[in-house]
Formats: sequence, C-alpha cells, structure tokens
Amino acid sequence: MLILMKSNASAEQLEAVASRVRELGLTPHPLQSSSRSVVGVTGERNGLDPAVFSALAGVSKVVRLSVPFKLAAREFHEDDTVVDVNGVTIGAGQKLCVMAGPCSFESEEQVLTIARTVKQAGATVMRGGLFKPRTSPFSFQGLHEDGVRIMQRAREETGLRFVTEALDERSLELVIEHADMIQIGARNMQNFTLLKKAGQSKKPVLLKRGMSATLEEWLTAADYVLSEGNPQVVLCERGIRTFATHTRNTLDLSVVPAVKELSHLPIIVDPSHGTGYRNYVPPMALAAVAAGADGIMVEVHNDPAQAKSDGAQSLFIEQFQQMMKQIPAVAEAVGRTL
Amino acid sequence: MLILMKSNASAEQLEAVASRVRELGLTPHPLQSSSRSVVGVTGERNGLDPAVFSALAGVSKVVRLSVPFKLAAREFHEDDTVVDVNGVTIGAGQKLCVMAGPCSFESEEQVLTIARTVKQAGATVMRGGLFKPRTSPFSFQGLHEDGVRIMQRAREETGLRFVTEALDERSLELVIEHADMIQIGARNMQNFTLLKKAGQSKKPVLLKRGMSATLEEWLTAADYVLSEGNPQVVLCERGIRTFATHTRNTLDLSVVPAVKELSHLPIIVDPSHGTGYRNYVPPMALAAVAAGADGIMVEVHNDPAQAKSDGAQSLFIEQFQQMMKQIPAVAEAVGRTL
Amino acid sequence: MLILMKSNASAEQLEAVASRVRELGLTPHPLQSSSRSVVGVTGERNGLDPAVFSALAGVSKVVRLSVPFKLAAREFHEDDTVVDVNGVTIGAGQKLCVMAGPCSFESEEQVLTIARTVKQAGATVMRGGLFKPRTSPFSFQGLHEDGVRIMQRAREETGLRFVTEALDERSLELVIEHADMIQIGARNMQNFTLLKKAGQSKKPVLLKRGMSATLEEWLTAADYVLSEGNPQVVLCERGIRTFATHTRNTLDLSVVPAVKELSHLPIIVDPSHGTGYRNYVPPMALAAVAAGADGIMVEVHNDPAQAKSDGAQSLFIEQFQQMMKQIPAVAEAVGRTL
Amino acid sequence: MLILMKSNASAEQLEAVASRVRELGLTPHPLQSSSRSVVGVTGERNGLDPAVFSALAGVSKVVRLSVPFKLAAREFHEDDTVVDVNGVTIGAGQKLCVMAGPCSFESEEQVLTIARTVKQAGATVMRGGLFKPRTSPFSFQGLHEDGVRIMQRAREETGLRFVTEALDERSLELVIEHADMIQIGARNMQNFTLLKKAGQSKKPVLLKRGMSATLEEWLTAADYVLSEGNPQVVLCERGIRTFATHTRNTLDLSVVPAVKELSHLPIIVDPSHGTGYRNYVPPMALAAVAAGADGIMVEVHNDPAQAKSDGAQSLFIEQFQQMMKQIPAVAEAVGRTL
Repeated sequence: MLILMKSNASAEQLEAVASRVRELGLTPHPLQSSSRSVVGVTGERNGLDPAVFSALAGVSKVVRLSVPFKLAAREFHEDDTVVDVNGVTIGAGQKLCVMAGPCSFESEEQVLTIARTVKQAGATVMRGGLFKPRTSPFSFQGLHEDGVRIMQRAREETGLRFVTEALDERSLELVIEHADMIQIGARNMQNFTLLKKAGQSKKPVLLKRGMSATLEEWLTAADYVLSEGNPQVVLCERGIRTFATHTRNTLDLSVVPAVKELSHLPIIVDPSHGTGYRNYVPPMALAAVAAGADGIMVEVHNDPAQAKSDGAQSLFIEQFQQMMKQIPAVAEAVGRTL
Repeated sequence: MLILMKSNASAEQLEAVASRVRELGLTPHPLQSSSRSVVGVTGERNGLDPAVFSALAGVSKVVRLSVPFKLAAREFHEDDTVVDVNGVTIGAGQKLCVMAGPCSFESEEQVLTIARTVKQAGATVMRGGLFKPRTSPFSFQGLHEDGVRIMQRAREETGLRFVTEALDERSLELVIEHADMIQIGARNMQNFTLLKKAGQSKKPVLLKRGMSATLEEWLTAADYVLSEGNPQVVLCERGIRTFATHTRNTLDLSVVPAVKELSHLPIIVDPSHGTGYRNYVPPMALAAVAAGADGIMVEVHNDPAQAKSDGAQSLFIEQFQQMMKQIPAVAEAVGRTL
Repeated sequence: MLILMKSNASAEQLEAVASRVRELGLTPHPLQSSSRSVVGVTGERNGLDPAVFSALAGVSKVVRLSVPFKLAAREFHEDDTVVDVNGVTIGAGQKLCVMAGPCSFESEEQVLTIARTVKQAGATVMRGGLFKPRTSPFSFQGLHEDGVRIMQRAREETGLRFVTEALDERSLELVIEHADMIQIGARNMQNFTLLKKAGQSKKPVLLKRGMSATLEEWLTAADYVLSEGNPQVVLCERGIRTFATHTRNTLDLSVVPAVKELSHLPIIVDPSHGTGYRNYVPPMALAAVAAGADGIMVEVHNDPAQAKSDGAQSLFIEQFQQMMKQIPAVAEAVGRTL
Repeated sequence: MLILMKSNASAEQLEAVASRVRELGLTPHPLQSSSRSVVGVTGERNGLDPAVFSALAGVSKVVRLSVPFKLAAREFHEDDTVVDVNGVTIGAGQKLCVMAGPCSFESEEQVLTIARTVKQAGATVMRGGLFKPRTSPFSFQGLHEDGVRIMQRAREETGLRFVTEALDERSLELVIEHADMIQIGARNMQNFTLLKKAGQSKKPVLLKRGMSATLEEWLTAADYVLSEGNPQVVLCERGIRTFATHTRNTLDLSVVPAVKELSHLPIIVDPSHGTGYRNYVPPMALAAVAAGADGIMVEVHNDPAQAKSDGAQSLFIEQFQQMMKQIPAVAEAVGRTL
C-alpha cells in the first residue's frame, strides 16, 4: 500500500501516519518527492482496508499495490481454472460453450421445443429462468416449482445441462437440487449472503457482472464464492450501464482480455442482455468469440412475439441456427473449436 | 402505451401489432405520421410489459404513457406520505430529520460516545451497521448480535431511534425485532425477496438508491415494499456511479425535486456515501436541505482514524456540531425547521 | 412527433398544445389513453426542435418519430456509402481497411520505419498526428509543418495513404492540402465550425465518436459534414467514457451493428484509444472485425518506451505483425477479406 | 510520480525503468513491497507524461503525485482569485453573482424585456447566445451580428454586463470586442485552439465543464487559458452525462467544494442546463448557493413556449423573481450576500 500525503501535510501528520502503520504491525517506508511525501507500507495481509489510512489527517489518497481480490487472482493461482458442468467443461483450452434458451420457462411445450432446437444446433447448456427478478412486482415472476418438473423432462430427453438463476435462499435450494449450474444474476452480484450460500454448495456457479460493477468488484464478489470452498466459478459479462441509448446496456467486451490477464476463471459473454436487440446479438456473439471468451449465453425463443419477458432480445430459432453456423470459423481463427 | 413502427414497416406488420393488442384485450389506435406509423394502446392494466410489443416484427420502440411504478406514484396518491419512526416523523411539512452515527458499530464505548454527541447536537435518529455488506470477504463484517445489545443500551440512555441495515432474511428478523427502522442498502435495492419481506413487516423502511438505479427503478423497488402492505418507505439518495473521480460517487441532488414531483414518499440524502470525503459532507448536507430534502443521514465518528470502515468519509464530532449550527438557517430559508 | 401530456394536464393545456401545433403549420392528432392524453403531430419538416413543445404547460415529454439526423440516415439513403481515400475504398462490400501508425509523428526515422513495417504487414492507410490535442498545455504538441514534409517523404516511398487530425482552421488547411484523409478527433466531434469547414473540402473525413456522444449525436455531427456537400465520411468508434477502470475508455463494439442498421456510412474501430493497453488491442481488433466493422485503426510504434505520447497503448511491431496474421481468418468467417 | 511494477516483473525490467528515469534527468527510488516493486521518481518538472513510463515492459501503472494542472491549482496559488467583469466581481468573499437571460437572443424586444426584468430582480450579468452550437445543422443557429447590436442597446439601457458564447475564432473576435465576458461552452472545453485565443485576450472567461470531463481535465483546460497570460477564469458546472434520465444531465454539485479545495478559481453553477426542466431549477439554484458556489447562471424567458431553443428549461419570469427572493436567506446562512 502507498499512502500519498497532501502537499501541505505537516511533519506531525506524516509521523502520525507512520505510527499508525507500525501500530498495525506493518512497516512504513517514507519517501519525499518534490511536491509531497509518500509512505510505502510493507508487511500487509489480506483484507487491509485502505480507508484505515485515508481517514488520517494530511492523507491525500491511498494506492493499493495488490489487487483487492485474492482467490480469483491469477497472481495467486496461475493456471486457468476449468469448470465442469456435469461433463461439459468451460475454460481456456476447452471447447467453446454455448448456453441458449428462453428468458423464462413458460410452458412444457415451449421449453421442449427450444431445447430440441438449441441442442441440435450445437448448444450444450440450456438457460431459462424459473424465478424471475422483475423490476416491477406486477410483472410475471416465473413458473417456480412447476418449471423444475419441465426442466427435468427436457434434460432427460435432450441430455442438455441446465443453468438457472437463484434469487434467494429458497430458490437457491431448488436450483442446487435440480439444476446443473447456479446462476447469480447481475442484481445479486453483491448479495453476499447468496454468494456465500452458493459457495457452500458443490454446484458450479455462473456469476453475472453487476450493471455498475468494476472488474475489481466482480472478481472480489467471486472471492465470496471461492472462499467458501467452491472453486467452480464462471464469470459472465452481460453489459454495463452507461449513457448510451442505442443498446439496453453497453456490452463491455474488453473485459474479456482483462479477465484473462487478471484472473484464472473462465469468462463467457451474454450479448442478449448486453444489447437488448436481437439483431445485434449474432454480431456481438461472434465478436465475443473473437475477443477470446470461453463461451456465450444467448436468449432464443420459438415465438418471441408471445414471450412473457425479454422478447425483443430473443433470437428467432432460424437466427440462432444461422449464428451457430458462423461461430466455428471465428472460433477456429482464434484457436478454439465449438 | 405507444408502439412506434419502423419507417419501413409493412402494412402486414402493422396489422399484426394491432392484432396482438386486441388479443391482449386492449384497443389499438393507429396513427400515420409522415415518417412512420404509431399505434396507441388504450385499456392497459398495471404491469403490462412493453417488451410484449417490442418483440414484434416491424416495431421500432415502445413508449410507456404511464410510469412503471404505481403505489409510489404521486399520480395515484396525491398527498405526501409522512413516515413515523417511533414518534419521529419524516416527510413534507415535518421537521427535517437528521440521522447520524458511525458506519459500523464497533464497541459499546464507541456507540455510546457518538450517541450522546449526536443527540445533543440535534439528531433524532442514529445510524450504524450491525451487519456490513463488505466488498471483500476478508474485511470486517460487523458485530451482529453483540451490536444489538449495544444498540439497546444506547437507545435507553439517549432516546434516539435506530436505523440499521438488513442484509438478508436472518439479519432482517433481528432488525425488525430490535431497530426502529429497516435500512435496505444500495446493493440490495433490487433484492426483491428482501424488499417483500420488509414490506411484510410493520417497521418503516429506509430504501437507499442503487448505485446505477434510475429514478423509475428506484420507485418501482419501493413498490415491492408498498405492495406487501407496508406504506412506510423513506427514500435515501446516496450517490450514483459515474465517470467522475473527485468523489467516491456522484451525489445526484436533482433527484430530490424529481422525487417530490413524481412520488409522495419522503426523501433524505446521505452526503457521506455520496461524496466519500468528510470535508465535502457539510456543504453537500446544506445543499440537500436547500434542494428540499426531508432530512439527511451522515456518518460521524469519535475517532475516524481508528474506524473499522469508512473513516475517510466520517465527520469528526466537531465538524458535525458545526454543521448542525448551520443547518437551521438554510432550513428556514426554504420553509423548514430542524 | 408525439407530445405526451402530464396525467393532470387540463383541457385548456391540451388545446394550447394543439393550437401551437397548428400555428407551426402542422396537424395535431389528439389521442386519449386511460392515464393521459397524447397529441400526434404530422406534417413536420427537418430540424423541428422537440423543445418547441416540451416548453408548453402540461406537457410531460415529447417523443420524436423520426431520427434527428437526416443525411447520415439509412432511412433517407438506403445504399451503403463507399468512401474513396485516394484509391483505397472503405465500406460495405469492400476489403477491410487497416489504418496503423504512431500516435504522433516524432522524427523522419520513426515515421519511415513504422511506415515500411505496417505497409509490409498489410496496412493501406497510415495514421499519425502532426498536431496533438494534449490535455495539458505543458505536454508535447506535435511536429506541425515539419511533420508534413516527413509525411510526404513516407508517402512517396511506401504508397501508403495518410490520415491525420485537424484541430482547427489553420491545421485543417494543412491537412486538406497534404493528407489523404481528414481526421476529426473525439474532442472535436461537436466543433461545428470545424465540421462545416471539413464538409466544404473534397477530402474524405474520418469522424471519431465523442467520448460521451450518443449514436444520434454522432450521426447528427456527420450531418454537419454531409450537409456542406462532402459525402465522404467514415465513422470511427474509439471508446466511450464510463465508470469502468480496467480500460482507459469502454470500447462500444455494439455501435457497429447499430450504425449498420441506422446509417449508410462506413464504420471502423480504434481499439488502441478504445482500451488504452496494448495487450488488449489485438483481441479487440479481431472482435471489431467479427462484429462487422469496415476496418480498424491501431497505434503501432517501433519503440513504444520512447514514444512521446500514448506509448502504453501502442503495439510493438511484432504484435502488429502477429495480429495481421490472425485478421484474415476472422474476416473470412464474416464474409470479408483484408 | 510512482511507477508500480507488475507482480511478475523481472529484475531486468525494474532496472530498465530506473534507467529510463535517469535518462530523463530524474532520480529513481526503488521500494520493494511484499507483492511488487515500486519506483518513486523525484526531480520531475511540469508536463511529464505518465505514459512515458507506463509504456515500459513490466510496468503495471503510474501514479502521479502532483495534480496535472498547474496554474489553476491552489497548491501553486493559495489565494482565491477574484474575477472582475467590468466592475462585477466574482469569487470567494464577494457577493454572489447571478447571471440570467434567455438561451438565445431572438429579437430586440425579447432581449430588452428580459434584461429589464432580471436586472430588477437582482441579476448583474445577462447571458444569451448570439452564436448557437446546435446539435443539428438544420436548427436555429443564432442572430450573430444582429444580436451584437441588440446586446449593446440592452447594456446601455440596463447597465447589465453581458456574457455570451464564442464558438470559433471569428465569433470569439466579436465576443471579445462587444461582450464583457467570453463563454466557452461545454462542447469546446477541450478546443485548445479556442482556449488559447481566449487566453490571449484581456476579457474574463467563463469556462463550462465538458459533459464528460473529470475535475482534473477541467482545471487542466483552465490552464490553457491561464498559461496565455489571462488570469480571469470563472468555472461553470452545468451537469455531466450519466445513465440517469430524470434530468437532461446530472448536476454535480459536489464539484463545488472540490474546486474550492483544489483550485483558487471561482465557480458558478448552471442548473438550467444541469437539469433541463424549469421546475427543478430553483431548488438546484438554492442548493448550489448552499454548497458554496460563487454564483449561478440561469435561463429565463419572457415566453418560454415561443423560445427558439431550450424553452423547457427556461424559467418563467415570475419563477425567476420568486427564486431571487429565496436566495438571500440561503446565501446568508452560508455567509454570503447577494
């Protein structure tokens, strides 16, 4: 940690900072530049809060020398993690993983129709919400337990793995019991209780990036899962909130190489939530693959016009099939296969 | 709702839209402008999702004519709501409410010292975390049950009311049982399960704005509490995430007159989280009062240099006392009293 | 245009709006929904400002039915524009265009070394600043006229075309006289005087997106060039300003399919400014190609450690060569060639 | 400057950094923490670009110890600057300055009516555009030279000072010749040529904050004016671009105390552009005064419904008069007078 003093900090303030550093069992290393003093701190352990020093008189700011996340950091775990979703592996060196399905499960017929189609086109994991975190309490909230039965049926018939979102402790229990992968949604990225509970399970976790989460916050949220003993976390970029209005969110594909540099965890990209318009999904899915993502997650619906949620961003089945034909060549160009 | 067609939409697409409108039991009103067609929809009920139409072929965008929130809307409830926190009232026409206290409860001595001080300076509600939502799992997480006992002791001695954050169902139960007001933090603004449970209690709720929440989303989150039968919601602006770096968040004071226009709920402002630097807290607290807020919430610490969290944004006790001397004149200038 | 009235708007206010519409020679079409009134407006012409109506009493908001840009709109010009930079064509159906070079021209040796290298690796246009818009007046400001002579020399030797930024009227004259393409930088995207002057020339214009420009504002800025009679505009995405800190800007690749839908103008992507870190440039360049961009612009330096500006985002020559070997396969996967 | 090395940086890379530091005539001070090396740099002069080091192999990031701006920094000029607009003084310790007027000058009658009114209500400076930077080339662009004559007339009659925006070199000449203060608009905050020309004049400059400018960038832009020898710069906050939609921009009032801490320049606030809705202007104007601003700038129109631009954010004359009655009490509460 580096503690930057204000340019007008007094010698007493500098000494008080050094003294607080020593009080915490650490070693201060003062350095005098032309414009201000800096105190380097060595000996620090995990979780030391920079605010401990930024609260002191005369301190201008505190710069961390290490990343705030630990278990998710490549610095502490050099080899790429490969996550295993009941036999479907996700990560560096693995096949690209395509997760596809409707926003919500609406009926058995809907789920089976889409499951058969996406399976045939090359997806290995099916997505679909049983519990929907809807912005308004007056909107459709999901099929809940009824959806579980439909999911079972579709899995038996197609062999697809299923990922579905857990919203709270009760739904998490159902997801752990019946699905192959737990999805933690963007709104819950910092629901630390839910993260810990997911970390206490043995099921792989798909951790979506919060709408206004920095990369550091996202990887630190992954630490909540990892620190409970569950090493199976896949990150999912799904767009961030910006001023731009041509898409529903701004898909931040540059986070893909950044995650690859700073972390050992796999990362996939969801261009459906990331753009909000079905016509932008195929080009952004191809771009995600070219950028080095380990997979993609897209919304597909047999009849988007009748979808109970997210219809505008759901691909028509033919669009999905067409996109799946383009992916292999892009994947190959960057050294991957589907 | 207005459905705007694309400029190249066909007559068939227009008819399909009108037909979908009728299918939902509503009435379509087509209007032809020079550049494109528009279909007005009448007869709609709460919770109709615009996506139902935006998913249709030929549709450019869907514009809601009504706000997405209902119970929080002034449109549906003209009179200002006054919230009662065990005798301390918050809202239009009431005295300004000052909530003050440390970020977290750290020890009995700390809590009692601060409680006596803020009480004397004019605060009526004390804030302080028992359960801390920390970004990293390796940081201080709060005193939990031990804090409850300290809070009781401080309440008995000072007569202050207490507001503290509930993070999950277990902590919510404790907060409902022992505190005077439930705080829902920014990270949980869209934790719909938690909102509903808070709505099922009889305790007033302080609903902080999410870091990237629009005003519509915030008021719609309030609807989750209100729709469970709990009418006592106070909104709290605490800064939004932007590109700006001179403050930790960007305090959006303009949301105060906007809330007053669109909603009947009281709104207070937290300039401590809103700026992140103690020296900016007093001017922004005065500005909040001038903008028409019904109260403020600030962090105060008897020894910020030793605070376990948020020290840099905690006011020194003398700063708080000084600020409390300036507030009455600003309040009076806008027709309020402290 | 649609004028949405407030829910409590009076009949007089509605009539005043209709009357103002008629006053402007247009036709009002009132529509009554359950919650509020709407007035459709037909007969409008270019450039009618929505604010004309939003200022009226009782008006809630005004929704445009047409896009605010005209000449840049695909709606008014269906066929893709192909821009000709002295024989190098840019646009749909053309070869991908690779523009490469240093941030600034620093010396003849530097420019010639880089020119020979990028030419050999497949670039057809060289970039490089003669006049630098530096944030601080105390930073290196460019070689100015000396750079022009160096550019001439490099062009003669390599046959590359040159694009360089014009900052003001004086530098624009030099750029028009000596370069093959005028670059308008992000900071000048709404420097309307400069846009008009560029529009009065015959040289193609590379119009970078402003750091906080919406797509509508960007295309409307293009209208300033186009409306002066210069049809040769290429758009360039270079990252927008968001809260994210893992990159210098957030590269918004989803704007590529959005531009292709709304406009006929070509679009290229600059991942060097878009990310700020050289290691993220190759994956994002490949992603840009996969997303459908008509070309890319990257910074390359023979000795980034000695670069006078933007060294951290400049590719090493070997990185550029390596990237140029990967591009053809991605291009081919989306039906393009290099 | 502090140069943070990557955790896996080699000893050779560290030495190369130290060596580059020495090459630039500066002194390197290596410091080894547990997780990585840091090199402190002393002896630096103005304008050293951090990128000089961030481009080197093994470097993680570079932290400046001094602010990038110089002449605008309180660090280098402790006393508050007071700007003199033909006898109207603006700055710490001075009376609050109220600038008011229409968005654009539209006719002699309009200007004179508004001038008389705002003068009588207590404004000392009149605002109003002669040259309008309109997003679309098809919108009203201002009265230009005709407006100059009207301005002269209004000044003679009322004794008000006039501030008006210069868009380019030609309009700057007219503004310097005829107005009392040069306004540089948000879109031109980094139009460095224009800033320098304004710096070469003797007229005070009102420098609006760019829509996506950090405080550092804004003060560094002020340096462009100051470094040409013109010390008379007043900053003007006018809202930044964020995701929020309840206002046109997000007025960042926290920048007021931040400017007061980091700079000696006066700062005023424009809540008209900052919010975009006239009803939010009075509360935000009062909030700006409470936050410590040295003045406000608001749009007022005798007939907003007929305004050629910005009607929705222009105060009705009665609203302005009403607001001017509330300001003195708020001003007095924070130790100022009107």
